[in-house]
Amino acid sequence: MQAELIFTGTELLLGEILNTHAQYLGQRLTALGIEPVLHTTVGDQGDRLAAVIAQALNRSDLIIITGGLGPTTDDLTKDIVAEVLGLPMVLDEPSLDRIREFFRRRGTEMPEIMVRQAYFPAGSRVLPNPRGTAPGALLEKDGRFLVLLPGPPGEVRAIFEGSVEPFLLQLGVSGTVSRSKILKVCGISEAMVQGLLKDLGGRGNPGIAYLARPGEVHIRITARAPGWAAAEEKVAELAAKVQERVAGYLFGTGEEELEEVVGQLLLQNRLTIALAESCTGGLIGSRLTSVPGSSAYFLGGVVAYDNRVKESVLGVPKGLLETYGAVSAETAVAMAKGARGVLQADLGLGVTGIAGPAGGTAEKPVGLVYIALAVPGGVDCRRFLFPGERPGVRWGASNAALMMVKDYCRKLEEGTKA
Amino acid sequence: MQAELIFTGTELLLGEILNTHAQYLGQRLTALGIEPVLHTTVGDQGDRLAAVIAQALNRSDLIIITGGLGPTTDDLTKDIVAEVLGLPMVLDEPSLDRIREFFRRRGTEMPEIMVRQAYFPAGSRVLPNPRGTAPGALLEKDGRFLVLLPGPPGEVRAIFEGSVEPFLLQLGVSGTVSRSKILKVCGISEAMVQGLLKDLGGRGNPGIAYLARPGEVHIRITARAPGWAAAEEKVAELAAKVQERVAGYLFGTGEEELEEVVGQLLLQNRLTIALAESCTGGLIGSRLTSVPGSSAYFLGGVVAYDNRVKESVLGVPKGLLETYGAVSAETAVAMAKGARGVLQADLGLGVTGIAGPAGGTAEKPVGLVYIALAVPGGVDCRRFLFPGERPGVRWGASNAALMMVKDYCRKLEEGTKA
Repeated sequence: MQAELIFTGTELLLGEILNTHAQYLGQRLTALGIEPVLHTTVGDQGDRLAAVIAQALNRSDLIIITGGLGPTTDDLTKDIVAEVLGLPMVLDEPSLDRIREFFRRRGTEMPEIMVRQAYFPAGSRVLPNPRGTAPGALLEKDGRFLVLLPGPPGEVRAIFEGSVEPFLLQLGVSGTVSRSKILKVCGISEAMVQGLLKDLGGRGNPGIAYLARPGEVHIRITARAPGWAAAEEKVAELAAKVQERVAGYLFGTGEEELEEVVGQLLLQNRLTIALAESCTGGLIGSRLTSVPGSSAYFLGGVVAYDNRVKESVLGVPKGLLETYGAVSAETAVAMAKGARGVLQADLGLGVTGIAGPAGGTAEKPVGLVYIALAVPGGVDCRRFLFPGERPGVRWGASNAALMMVKDYCRKLEEGTKA
Repeated sequence: MQAELIFTGTELLLGEILNTHAQYLGQRLTALGIEPVLHTTVGDQGDRLAAVIAQALNRSDLIIITGGLGPTTDDLTKDIVAEVLGLPMVLDEPSLDRIREFFRRRGTEMPEIMVRQAYFPAGSRVLPNPRGTAPGALLEKDGRFLVLLPGPPGEVRAIFEGSVEPFLLQLGVSGTVSRSKILKVCGISEAMVQGLLKDLGGRGNPGIAYLARPGEVHIRITARAPGWAAAEEKVAELAAKVQERVAGYLFGTGEEELEEVVGQLLLQNRLTIALAESCTGGLIGSRLTSVPGSSAYFLGGVVAYDNRVKESVLGVPKGLLETYGAVSAETAVAMAKGARGVLQADLGLGVTGIAGPAGGTAEKPVGLVYIALAVPGGVDCRRFLFPGERPGVRWGASNAALMMVKDYCRKLEEGTKA
């Protein structure tokens, strides 16, 4: 089933408000196995709206229109739909009663203009609006469905989840459905990920798409099949191959935040952590403490931006800084050990690098970051070269650092099980 | 001049990311006196994209397409545009040089796949991308203009403001244009700001609009006039009045970030700063160090999430913590003094509070934050109660803390001048 979304409202075209319907409805439809293939935003202009609706009826199975169900003269959606489908507008008495009741409960008379909200194209199934006075409507035309929803986001959600979703589920989603899965990687550029995976497929079925974010790349695997289970199986099969190729860079899937995953693992393993951040300047601490309850495992950290702080607070030897430089494996290790020792934590994480734009050299370029994890009985240190600019380098470094903690906890759990 | 916007990217259709281009480009075009009449979102599918572009060329004077300029196989926009316009793809040597240089500066080889980003439909005017490797392009066809922009919002903004807007202005934009200015305030609620400004105007011309964000409020002043200069003059006149009323809460205008303003002031006054963060967990350090060159004034900080860290690293007396509690003016003062002393900085900032959702009591509710600023010869401590949830409390606390530093520097400058 292919769906098409039409958003009406001049305020959306002019950018006066952010269109959040596109994301909400896109997600809900995708979850139902319905594929949104086009979004269109039009102003409160009858002729253009009519043309867009007519076109949509020629190519999509499900058309959802938001906005324009209000009582004022620039609310045109129902009239235009009736015109395009060649239907008269008819009064729905139960709707009029509900609107009257709404005003009565507020102790006022219903303004006469509100009667418009109780008129629908003939044959409409009226969709009750628990959050406002404008009901939605559902129409069928030659096996295609038209859903009319109001404009306010809260009302769109209430009617979609209360009436539209149950209707679509009951209808049974026929034909090809699609499922997708997102794998999040960091410490590698979009082009390099593409290079690693290029023989696994591009835009085919199943297909792979890439989305670059500062400091991370999201790999989206999508598959179409006659049923949900079959589509999911295809996704899982390809995802397993992709996962194998990018294992060293993978830090999460879907909506999961890395700081939540790490927090959960620290909690499960009853480990505490302390940080020594240089180029990330507090970003890792900020991410870890954004999770409620993080005080159970996060003791604190030292933001050692200046070398004197690395020496005086973390106890990094001056000679070491002079010999190897602040951005070196040796310094990262000393920082991690220092954080662990000074703050008396089980794990100590040390991060030092060059975030840019200045400070890079041929030998130590912008993007170079050393990350060390001190654990009971040892230290692991890794060298990274993050692509992009300052925000990307910092975010990438924070991802990579949290990844090292995650990997350590996972290995610990495997060791316990073995 | 009528404009049409086309957003490409399956991730937009599926609702995986929020489309912020629609609002940004809608606002900028409207400000230029250009009317956006249609927005369309299509997936990474060549045939559908080709159809949408062909249709747009039949009805609109200006067509802006975002996304699909990357190096991977699902980046199709330039190829499809070339196909629709019947143009060959040609290599732009200067673009290739810039992309090579980008990688050289990072000390790596350019992946061969990146070459795609230097190919454009013949006759394109290449629009430099100061924020990434994918340049934009501008094409003319029978008096209609096609603008191709990348997908990442930061790159869209940089190219639009750097190349597209100057081009459109030079082209001569007829009709009424509008200008606007944003004043950012914090430490005051949206309702209170509205109360302070209510007699200065609402939705008229010039008009004032309000936007509440977690921890801050943005005041948007807009004016329309027949010309650019006249609109700007109207904005400036009203902005001056608004600024006077909200002076105590104002921390920036437009795109200016508070951490940049504070950094500039510390630099001007040759002051160094050190932090002691508890409930903000590194957020203030992260914000300060997001500014390039911040190592000139930011020495570092201690994230003292656990009380033992407050004692051992910052030297907050155990008795004080026991008597007054970790969230108290006394602790904030001791933390600020501790950070200043331990890190040998001119200024020390101490922040302690309850970010929630747990940990609040009737006496010390969620949102209660004490912020102390230790300076040569004294300490200033203030008590705040931030509304909202964990992210809003943390962001609000970081704003308030940076504001205290800003105010101190400003007063210092006034004292020097007096």
